Formats: sequence, structure tokens, C-alpha cells
Amino acid sequence: MNPGITYRDAGVDLDAARRHTTNIAAMVAGGTGGFAGLVEMPKMRDPLLVSATDGVGTKIALAQKLGRLDGLGQDLVAMCVNDLACTGATPLFFLDYMAVGRLDPEIAGQIVASIAAACAAVGCALVGGETAEHPGVVAPDHLDLAGFAVGVVERDEVLGAHRVREGDLIVGIPSSGLHSNGFSLVRALVDSGALAPDPDLLLEPTRLYPNDVARLRDAGVDLHAASHITGGGFPENLPRVIPEGLRPVVDPTTWERTAAIAAVLDTGQVPDEDAWSTFNMGIGMCLILPRDAAAIATGAIAGARAIGHVEAGDGGLRLG
Amino acid sequence: MNPGITYRDAGVDLDAARRHTTNIAAMVAGGTGGFAGLVEMPKMRDPLLVSATDGVGTKIALAQKLGRLDGLGQDLVAMCVNDLACTGATPLFFLDYMAVGRLDPEIAGQIVASIAAACAAVGCALVGGETAEHPGVVAPDHLDLAGFAVGVVERDEVLGAHRVREGDLIVGIPSSGLHSNGFSLVRALVDSGALAPDPDLLLEPTRLYPNDVARLRDAGVDLHAASHITGGGFPENLPRVIPEGLRPVVDPTTWERTAAIAAVLDTGQVPDEDAWSTFNMGIGMCLILPRDAAAIATGAIAGARAIGHVEAGDGGLRLG
Repeated sequence: MNPGITYRDAGVDLDAARRHTTNIAAMVAGGTGGFAGLVEMPKMRDPLLVSATDGVGTKIALAQKLGRLDGLGQDLVAMCVNDLACTGATPLFFLDYMAVGRLDPEIAGQIVASIAAACAAVGCALVGGETAEHPGVVAPDHLDLAGFAVGVVERDEVLGAHRVREGDLIVGIPSSGLHSNGFSLVRALVDSGALAPDPDLLLEPTRLYPNDVARLRDAGVDLHAASHITGGGFPENLPRVIPEGLRPVVDPTTWERTAAIAAVLDTGQVPDEDAWSTFNMGIGMCLILPRDAAAIATGAIAGARAIGHVEAGDGGLRLG
Repeated sequence: MNPGITYRDAGVDLDAARRHTTNIAAMVAGGTGGFAGLVEMPKMRDPLLVSATDGVGTKIALAQKLGRLDGLGQDLVAMCVNDLACTGATPLFFLDYMAVGRLDPEIAGQIVASIAAACAAVGCALVGGETAEHPGVVAPDHLDLAGFAVGVVERDEVLGAHRVREGDLIVGIPSSGLHSNGFSLVRALVDSGALAPDPDLLLEPTRLYPNDVARLRDAGVDLHAASHITGGGFPENLPRVIPEGLRPVVDPTTWERTAAIAAVLDTGQVPDEDAWSTFNMGIGMCLILPRDAAAIATGAIAGARAIGHVEAGDGGLRLG
């Protein structure tokens, strides 16, 4: 035996890696043997490929602190496929990247299971992923997640600002809580004792919106645009789908804030403007559509309601 | 002014984030405004979509220590598109995920520029990315990268074990150094003083192989399979593209080890078996093709040479 440095001495646990690969093999379409994942391209008239990447941010740190990791996979998938849905795309496949300090096959398997379940819920194949162990570079319990989603949409069905007209209605779909944004702030509130560390309230997984958007398409609604209320909140995300010369008007009295948003605001520690530019305020997805389609939309999606409209003007979001 | 907790107090620097977005906007196809990236699907007979995700691992930590970050973008792109190339796919688009403790727009911009240059070199569009700041969760200088590549291949042109025949030759293409694997071990050697901390030697960016594979296709070579010699080295990666009942034989005396591999082995600290299962040993990509096509292949790709063949047998790689 050579007494030199082996890869295990350097901190990498190849047995744990093999155990993890075995655990997740059945969850990954096509298995874990190939260099790359292969997916059939659906037959379409004039398809565009749509892609999005995102992470879960520091929600992971709060989930670790509160001992509740099993929703993080849905958070990861939702952050990506909800962005895809804003173009009108149907999700096709997903890959994940997980970076850890020391690989715990049980925790990693739990997260991949949550990813696989969320992919299945939106009809998206989990075709691959990478689990990277970085011993010595980060703490043993370090955990970070990144997701990548690809979907397809017919070129003449792409949603966006180019379809939006003055007078269009804005329909809001409720969020399932804080989703995956603003957690540096939430953690500071929890650490200071201002906010109770309630995992049910603070860690509820991010709602998946692609099926809601698909339901409208199936109902024949002429959807113009969709906005995922993610990092930056309403002021940053809603104007992204409104063309120049028009602006969105939203009436905050038209919906109930979710319990999680209310708890954060009740701390009295978050200035109103910061709350609006950090959190979803209770609405996770906005749909912009012709006024006469609003009743079909609110009938087809539980909890959806008209929350505003599009008017002439400039300067981003108007609350009123 | 409300004296509460703002997002900046919580550690997130939104100005730095905006500066970074402005810096990279010109490098990202379609800009940085949309929720998701859109790419035209090429017209093909019966296309499959191929995807791969990977990171750069702890090479990042050594690059930070030696103050040379500008090759990491190429490493990231290469780790993904070299996997795509193993299926015969043409790279189509790429997205990156960058996690940092505190965002330094200059460093982040340098890395995205390196990603963009590597994408351009293989004809792949950089369509999006996510830069995530995780203050308080990781050290301010924490940096991690994940990449995601999508390509396309005609179904009847997919490379792999199903094409490989007894007697096929194995042609090796030189690596550009250590590529992006084995850096937990390399860092241990540098930290112990056994290996000189030479950035030119240890941090040379990972070679991009897709254009080499495309050159063979253009030359009419009937390529059977390709194996990216990545994590796990020859013993793990070469057998992945060899069908049951056959095995690869490789003669290590047929090529020169690169200077970086030689330096690692010269430390006398790495058992031979560990070196083979950790590093690329000087060959970063193996092509498996009919014996009569070998001369065209070695003529078309600088430095490529026959390094072995496929024989009847089982049990993985045979060195001899």
C-alpha cells in the first residue's frame, strides 16, 4: 500500500456518492448511466425552446435551521417552471444541481424525491442532475440547489408584452406563502426574535403555476401575458410584461394577504416599500388578458381574481 | 423613515446586482429582461433534445487561492458541452448559475465573459443565467458555478454503446491539463507543499471538444461512440460507452502525459490506481470508431492518436 493521499483522504466520499446514485436512479428518466439526458422533441408547427434557471436562495438555510427540507425540491422546480409558464411554454424536462459540503445520501435523496414529485405534477421529465461534494471548501452541512427547466411553445403563441392592450385585466393567482424569495430578510427577522420560527407558515413550498396557465389555454382564453411575482416583487416583475406607453394598476385591497406575508408585516420591522419589492404579497402569478375573458379565468382557477388592469401611462406599477 | 430591517440590512446588495445585470446584458442572447430564454428549434428530420449539467467543483477554490478566475467560465461550459458531444449532439444553448456570498460585479462579470467566450467558441447561445447572493449563509468570497447545456441530435445519429463493435479503435484527444476533476486531491497536495502552486500548470481551462467531434462528422467518419474522461477517469467513463460482452483496452505508453498530470504524479503522493480513477491522465476525450476511419480521425484533430481498441471480454477497462 502506498501511504499517499487518496481521494477519500482529500474528503470526498465515493461510497456515499454511489449510494446516492443508486437511490435516485429510479427517479431520473432514462437512469443515471449516460453522459447526457435525451428527450424526444414533440412534433410542433414552429417551435421555440424556452429555458430558465433559478435557485432556492437562502430559504435553504431556514429550512435547515427548522429541520424541514422536504419542500425544497418543489421550490426549486417551481422557481424554474413558473418562469417558463410566463412565455406560454409547456415544461418538457428539468435538471438539478446540488452542491453539498458532505453528501448525506438520505437528505439528498429526500430532496431529489421532492424534485421528482414536482416535475411529475407539471408533466415534466427529470432527465439528469449533478450532485457535487465540496469538502473543505464549505461547511459539511452546506447545501445549495440550482434548477434548469426547458419547455416548448409555438412561435405564434408566445406570451408577452407584445400582446398586451390598454384596458386588459390583471388576474392574480394566490401564492402558497412566501415562495422562495426574501429569505435573507425572513431569516434576519427570525434571528432577531421578531418572527416566530414556524415551519408550516414560513416554508410552505412554492406553488406550481404551469397547470393553471395550461387550463386557461385549454379553455380557449386568449391569454396575453403572465408575470411570475418572484425576486423584486410586483414593482419589478409586473412591468416586465407591459409594453411602453402602458402601465399596470393593481388594487391591493382586492385580495387577502396570505398568513405568511401577514406574519412578516405584523413584525412592524419591514417598511411597506421593502415588503412590496421583496415578497409576493399573496399573489404569486399575474395573468393579463382581455376584459371579456376574466370570468372564464377566475372560474377555471381556484382563488384567482381580478386585481387590476392595464392603463395608458408610464413609470411602472401604480398601486390604487 | 421606518427604522426596520431593509433588504440591504439583511445583507443583499441590490445596487451590485443591478450593476452586474448591466455588465452582462450584452453578453446574453436576447438580453436580461425576460423571464426565460427563447431559442429557435432547428429544422431537423427526427430530433432529440440532449441536456447536461455540471459544475467546476473545487477547482474554483484553487483558482481563488491562486488569483486566477478567468478560465472558470470555459471550464464550466466545457464540462457540460463535452458531455453533450458524447451523444453526437450539436450544442444549442447554455445557461449558468452562479452562487456567491457577496456579489463582486467585476469578478462575476469576468466569469460571465469567460462563459460567453466559450459558448461562442462552440457555436452555442448563452441565453440566460442566475446570479444568487447568499449573504450570511456562506463566506463573502464563496463562489460556486453550475452550468446547463442543451443540444440537438438526429435520432438515428445518436452515438453510444449500441454502435460499438469488436475491433473498433479507440482514438484519444489530448486534454489541456487537469480539466475540472480531482481538485480536492490537487488542493490537498498544494496545501501540503508537495505540489507547486503554479496557476499556468494547474488551472489551464478545460478543452472544448464539440468542434473536434463535429469535424469528424463533416469528414464523413462513422463515429461510433465518444467518452468524456471526466470524474472517475478512464475506468469509470470509457466502459460507459462499451456494450456488454466487449471491453476497452488502452495502452498508456501510446501518449505523453501532460505536464500537469506529470507534476501531480511526480509528488509521489498519489497511488497509481487513484490517479487513474481521478484524473484524465492526459486524454480528455476518447473516440471509438471503425479501424479504417482512424487515419482520417487522427489527421483531422491535432494531437489525436490511436490509444487502444475494443476486444471481446467483460470487466471494464483493461490497461495493456
